[in-house]
Amino acid sequence: MALPSSVRIVEVGPRDGLQNEAGPVIATDIKVALINRLAAAGVSHIEAASFVSPKWVPQMGDAAAVMAGITRHDGVAYAALTPNLRGVEGAIESGADEVAIFTAASESFTRKNINCSIAESLERFVPVVEAAKRNNIRIRGYVSTVLGCPYEGDIDPSQVAAVSRELLDMGCYEISLGDTIGVGTPVRARKMLARVANEVPINQLAAHFHDTYGQALANLYAVLQDGISVIDSSVAGLGGCPYASGASGNVASEDVVYMLEGLGIKTGIDLKELAATGNWITQQLGRNNGSKVGLALGCSS
Amino acid sequence: MALPSSVRIVEVGPRDGLQNEAGPVIATDIKVALINRLAAAGVSHIEAASFVSPKWVPQMGDAAAVMAGITRHDGVAYAALTPNLRGVEGAIESGADEVAIFTAASESFTRKNINCSIAESLERFVPVVEAAKRNNIRIRGYVSTVLGCPYEGDIDPSQVAAVSRELLDMGCYEISLGDTIGVGTPVRARKMLARVANEVPINQLAAHFHDTYGQALANLYAVLQDGISVIDSSVAGLGGCPYASGASGNVASEDVVYMLEGLGIKTGIDLKELAATGNWITQQLGRNNGSKVGLALGCSS
Repeated sequence: MALPSSVRIVEVGPRDGLQNEAGPVIATDIKVALINRLAAAGVSHIEAASFVSPKWVPQMGDAAAVMAGITRHDGVAYAALTPNLRGVEGAIESGADEVAIFTAASESFTRKNINCSIAESLERFVPVVEAAKRNNIRIRGYVSTVLGCPYEGDIDPSQVAAVSRELLDMGCYEISLGDTIGVGTPVRARKMLARVANEVPINQLAAHFHDTYGQALANLYAVLQDGISVIDSSVAGLGGCPYASGASGNVASEDVVYMLEGLGIKTGIDLKELAATGNWITQQLGRNNGSKVGLALGCSS
Repeated sequence: MALPSSVRIVEVGPRDGLQNEAGPVIATDIKVALINRLAAAGVSHIEAASFVSPKWVPQMGDAAAVMAGITRHDGVAYAALTPNLRGVEGAIESGADEVAIFTAASESFTRKNINCSIAESLERFVPVVEAAKRNNIRIRGYVSTVLGCPYEGDIDPSQVAAVSRELLDMGCYEISLGDTIGVGTPVRARKMLARVANEVPINQLAAHFHDTYGQALANLYAVLQDGISVIDSSVAGLGGCPYASGASGNVASEDVVYMLEGLGIKTGIDLKELAATGNWITQQLGRNNGSKVGLALGCSS
């Protein structure tokens, strides 16, 4: 199969990235500036906040203030993670363009992460989905541990396919397949995707691959060959791996965009602006830049 | 084309890696221990030293002592870089199993790097090759800047093919294609390779890709699909990029072996031992580990 002519990047740095950053709570101003800079660089889909209880995730406690503070760019979708009814109500009130719900392909991971079975996790999202539908807000679904689980090891692709199908049937317009611990390699990624694509049309699937073992770009190149055209990534690789200290988590947006440009695939993103944003946010956070492109270009902020 | 069933890793950390490390000259003992640990981990081809004038490369001034110090493992080839006749004589005396000569696909790079034209660089290697042949020692050829040059930008694949063919005709048994500045992406790597393979049989070609822009594994996965079965890499990603401070150079051997294992491709290398070696050498050098697998596994030395 030919490579796609364009790819939509879903920038998850402001939410999935920052949420997993160690250290003190980041100022609302910084989060707002990050989102505005990403939009200005041409990113058209930004996961901006999580409407989760600040008791559980203090880093996202200012979700409403972040959403109120950003300058909306035309053509940019601002998404929010919504774990429950209260969350989706907050997201709707804040003017989120879409909400996201999440579960996993591993029973053990779901139990340890959100303290219920996969089936229960999906039931819990029914009122979230209903509220979003009533407000004509799109719903995106995340499936974690699609290529491996820290507790169970290998995950059966049929299980990924079954969970993805359930999210589709609930009303998700797109299912993002997360290699949460970054253990996948190209052929396994392709096999998993082929199985899932039996249940969910490939143009409703996204790749959310982590770079913990350095495999993310190879895996992305592999699944691009099979028709994937939506990729989740995080500027500067924000959000380390919570399972290995010092290790990488989300693949860096800059590295993905660099590869796509080299492959002649359009993203609408200005790589230099994106890299400058990555260098700026890492300076703000006092962390290393997790993007090799960011380091190589050495863009000033 | 199917992926190969096995790949030979050419470990370049002790030479190409250490030579490009900043900081003081590394003790001979450390270099010897590194090479011995790599061989014990199952690496069958190790670039161990460079017989270059210590005036130019102080880090390699102890090449003869390194070669004398290592414990030879059966089935392991110990290679040495040899820029001139004096170098090849030293390498032969030291018992090197093979020697390596080098040029580039870019005229500007060759001029700036070794102060002559590509044609002159090849002429200079004639006596080196003759000396090696007289001693029944194999000769490996390196071509730099195959996917881009810091001075010229894009490089015509025909130029890479022509230089590779000349090295083959001089008597090199294998030509290693170096993306010296790491700017390549998968489709460009495949196109370059296809052109070179018109001149040199693909089973006499090796991929030597740098990870400066994070693209190395994606590029390797791409060319594995085209029949490449020899890969140069550097444990712990030793040897940064000399053109961008803090940026990556050689792709880390651990990350390559992890991908190959996931693809079901044999290397004969014990990944845990290799990762432990990477963590050990980075501790010795007081540098960060450039291997994501090394960081994720967190192997003790």
